[in-house]
Amino acid sequence: MEQERTEIQDLGEFGLIDYLTRNIEIQNASTVLGVGDDAAVIDHFGKQTVISTDMLVEGIHFDLMYTPLKHLGYKAVVVNLSDIYAMNATPTQITVSIAFSNRFSLEALNEFYEGVYAACEKYGVDLIGGDTSNSQKGFIISVTAIGEVTPDQFVKRSTAEKGDLLCVTGDLGAAYLGLTLLEREKKIYLESPEVKPDLEDQTYIIGRQLKPEARKDIIEFLQQEDIKPTSMMDVSDGLSSEILHIAKQSNLGVVLYEDKIPIAQESKEIAMKFGLDPTACALSGGEDYELLFTMKQADYDKIVLNEQISVIGYMTDITEGAHILTKGGNKYKLVAQGWNAFQQ
Amino acid sequence: MEQERTEIQDLGEFGLIDYLTRNIEIQNASTVLGVGDDAAVIDHFGKQTVISTDMLVEGIHFDLMYTPLKHLGYKAVVVNLSDIYAMNATPTQITVSIAFSNRFSLEALNEFYEGVYAACEKYGVDLIGGDTSNSQKGFIISVTAIGEVTPDQFVKRSTAEKGDLLCVTGDLGAAYLGLTLLEREKKIYLESPEVKPDLEDQTYIIGRQLKPEARKDIIEFLQQEDIKPTSMMDVSDGLSSEILHIAKQSNLGVVLYEDKIPIAQESKEIAMKFGLDPTACALSGGEDYELLFTMKQADYDKIVLNEQISVIGYMTDITEGAHILTKGGNKYKLVAQGWNAFQQ
Repeated sequence: MEQERTEIQDLGEFGLIDYLTRNIEIQNASTVLGVGDDAAVIDHFGKQTVISTDMLVEGIHFDLMYTPLKHLGYKAVVVNLSDIYAMNATPTQITVSIAFSNRFSLEALNEFYEGVYAACEKYGVDLIGGDTSNSQKGFIISVTAIGEVTPDQFVKRSTAEKGDLLCVTGDLGAAYLGLTLLEREKKIYLESPEVKPDLEDQTYIIGRQLKPEARKDIIEFLQQEDIKPTSMMDVSDGLSSEILHIAKQSNLGVVLYEDKIPIAQESKEIAMKFGLDPTACALSGGEDYELLFTMKQADYDKIVLNEQISVIGYMTDITEGAHILTKGGNKYKLVAQGWNAFQQ
Repeated sequence: MEQERTEIQDLGEFGLIDYLTRNIEIQNASTVLGVGDDAAVIDHFGKQTVISTDMLVEGIHFDLMYTPLKHLGYKAVVVNLSDIYAMNATPTQITVSIAFSNRFSLEALNEFYEGVYAACEKYGVDLIGGDTSNSQKGFIISVTAIGEVTPDQFVKRSTAEKGDLLCVTGDLGAAYLGLTLLEREKKIYLESPEVKPDLEDQTYIIGRQLKPEARKDIIEFLQQEDIKPTSMMDVSDGLSSEILHIAKQSNLGVVLYEDKIPIAQESKEIAMKFGLDPTACALSGGEDYELLFTMKQADYDKIVLNEQISVIGYMTDITEGAHILTKGGNKYKLVAQGWNAFQQ
């Protein structure tokens, strides 16, 4: 008898995670929140611990041809800290495990760890463990971040309410445009190694790709202003995908205004140059590591003067679906990769 | 100018870790113990959290030709739990991240997770997070285990004292012999695929390699008997390497009696068949996941009837060095890969 074989790509990443975690039964009273959000929450006698983990694989998540190892170490930490902040928690410790092929020298690993330590210092976290081993091919990084939060002050994705304002921090799309530029320059270099790349005017978008930051400042601002978001997550896969996560998990609909999506002037210019739609880059690009959150309308006055926070829409009843209102006045169905002009 | 290049193998694994962690400065008061032991310890307002992490890489740590994926999932969890028990702590949660090439089907991943969940159930821990991604080649697993311990009841490697008894649990060398047997059968199969492997008589040593267990029972026994080991670690790299860790980190010497090292009858028989010295397998084999600990002589009466605990030596002043007294009455210097007959 032939064995059944289902291809993993048929499920997609989230389908795969759903599938693999479908039978989990929580056994410890201290496990407050398990799989399914940016991070897990553990209650250790009054204080709550938050854990998040990510794996980065050479050739899949990064290309060492244009990624300095120091930036890679920094980014590997920051993307995990971003998950902790997205829980409304404060990161306190990390573990870093790496596997590397024999083409890496000690100097190369040292450069990587310089980036790790730079991120630890900037965000005030301790590296408390890890593992190093060989790989047959390439460089593999696994980071686990641990944080703490005042009991029950953590913020999930599933608790937005109808009428809540939808907000996002910073600007979007630049990391994707930075990647597009780096990939283009790589291609040119491989075809004509004598052509020198001219990236000087593009430090903003390249920096957003190679050395992202986590929004510690926003979590501090929200605490200072006594705002507890009703739901929150970080923008790692692209705005539309993340908005749909919050809507779906909160059992709500959503309206997004295209003209409210924050996009930097540098990003608009380079998008034009590449013939790309800046809005599409923001919706589908990913790796921005900004915070997407919902909050009560009553809190609007507290954030209106903060230029780092944009209100981009609001949550509706689930029967109204998830839509984007474009600059041109059209209403399209929001889908994970942007919008769908065929299903209004 | 040429860049400096130091080869990683010149340092060895522990030298590499020492090098990469040499500049760590602890920033959070809650970080009780960082890099350098089986796991880190975090103090979260009275209760202490213990974290440990390991990365397993196909072709380096395991061979899927003879490792069933379910056993691999089980083992990946157990080796991390073993580190938590080695801190005298109780594991409570794990995260599991995997990267896999496109040769893996959903059924294959499911089999792996069946093993993960079987270990979770057996040891009473919750899977609370993780990450899945593609790899360019092979299967990569990163597990982080979290545990808890009554404040300051965790046991380090560095706190053994002169005169303490050196103890080890279970028996040693079997996992290495299981690996040797599996590697031999693989070689025969690759040369003559028509020859059927006959492993039926060897279930003990193969089980010790493919499906090890962590010594939860011992930690419970020690607590029940009110014994706090003076130092402890798990045996993952081989007995002699681990004994030297405890001696070095505790700034002591040690005497090990060859005839006290526990080795199963099955292991002795297969070692003979392979022309291997059973003691050498125990000293250098590794992957036993037994507990190695030191305790006060006054606690001896409490453990003497426990057949799972063997007293194998005692700690001495550092000036006396680290030695093994062989069955033949000779005294040799203990080295990480067994003993050295040239340096007495």
